Amino acid sequence: MYSERMSTSERLIESTRELLWERGYVGTSPKAILERSGAGQGSMYHHFKGKPDLALAAIRRTAEELGATAEAVLTGPGTPYDRITAYLTRERDVLRGCPVGRLTMDPDIVANDELRAPVDETLDRIRELIAAIVEEGKEQGQFAPSLDGAEIAATVLATVQGGYVLARASGSPAAFDAGVRGLLSLLEPRGTPHP
Amino acid sequence: MYSERMSTSERLIESTRELLWERGYVGTSPKAILERSGAGQGSMYHHFKGKPDLALAAIRRTAEELGATAEAVLTGPGTPYDRITAYLTRERDVLRGCPVGRLTMDPDIVANDELRAPVDETLDRIRELIAAIVEEGKEQGQFAPSLDGAEIAATVLATVQGGYVLARASGSPAAFDAGVRGLLSLLEPRGTPHP
Repeated sequence: MYSERMSTSERLIESTRELLWERGYVGTSPKAILERSGAGQGSMYHHFKGKPDLALAAIRRTAEELGATAEAVLTGPGTPYDRITAYLTRERDVLRGCPVGRLTMDPDIVANDELRAPVDETLDRIRELIAAIVEEGKEQGQFAPSLDGAEIAATVLATVQGGYVLARASGSPAAFDAGVRGLLSLLEPRGTPHP
Repeated sequence: MYSERMSTSERLIESTRELLWERGYVGTSPKAILERSGAGQGSMYHHFKGKPDLALAAIRRTAEELGATAEAVLTGPGTPYDRITAYLTRERDVLRGCPVGRLTMDPDIVANDELRAPVDETLDRIRELIAAIVEEGKEQGQFAPSLDGAEIAATVLATVQGGYVLARASGSPAAFDAGVRGLLSLLEPRGTPHP
């Protein structure tokens, strides 16, 4: 239940986000959304065309939040290696998984181009930011000239997304952390002395 | 429907594997298993204690198959780098996702220690095999002595699992391939000339 001051359409979106997270698209019924948000059916159909429309608003918001968090870290201070390190080691609720990445395991979302679009766009945007940072690091001589920015960006993103899978499989964040440390050791700037 | 020559318990396990894949644990009802396998209710309860027992048999079999496939590639011919390359580039149905990794996104499986165990054990076994290969590569001077076998193994596995996420988000295997190529460029043996 949400604060009285939150608008009905806000409560509907937030309830849908929670339900998508907990039960997936198929398990998120209009009835459950109404119950959790405390909104009436007429009110829901006043604000949204139906469940797909509400799910799209919910997915867009989740994707925008993740994109903004990643962007803040990746455009922060420090060398290219520092910024990639900050992105890889930022605080995460590892065992819950990525709110955006997890949507790709929902068959109903992946099968629907409109629902999949915000997920794809957000991951793409993060990948482009990281690719540019790698290219910057190459110019500064931090990274080997043979590396391809777009490929390394995909590896960075995949290590994070796959780290969630390993953590959930083992019931511990340790595997996530190990994968990140491994990648950072491979990316370590050239000429850095090893202890 | 399965061949007449397949035993009833086989048909029950295979039907459960398919349903877990298509609908997840919650969406796999005993009724759906009976319908797909063509087995009778009495026969199901003769062979299995119920849905959790049948799901465990199905998950074990999927995990064993994946473990055996990975082991065959990782213990094949070639240098440590060659074997890791073979593992990363082996043919995969990328857009379907990993049959084992995907189970970690099923809340009912992750919450159940018994159902999660075969997933965890299989990923662990693959990780140990890769860790040993990295250590071998360090001894041979292929990989930098500063790398940690267990960490690199987690990175390799995470890149694969996360590659599926990126591929499913974009609706194309290209992002999976890019992540793998990025990791291979980072792992490239020292002293290899760049074109």
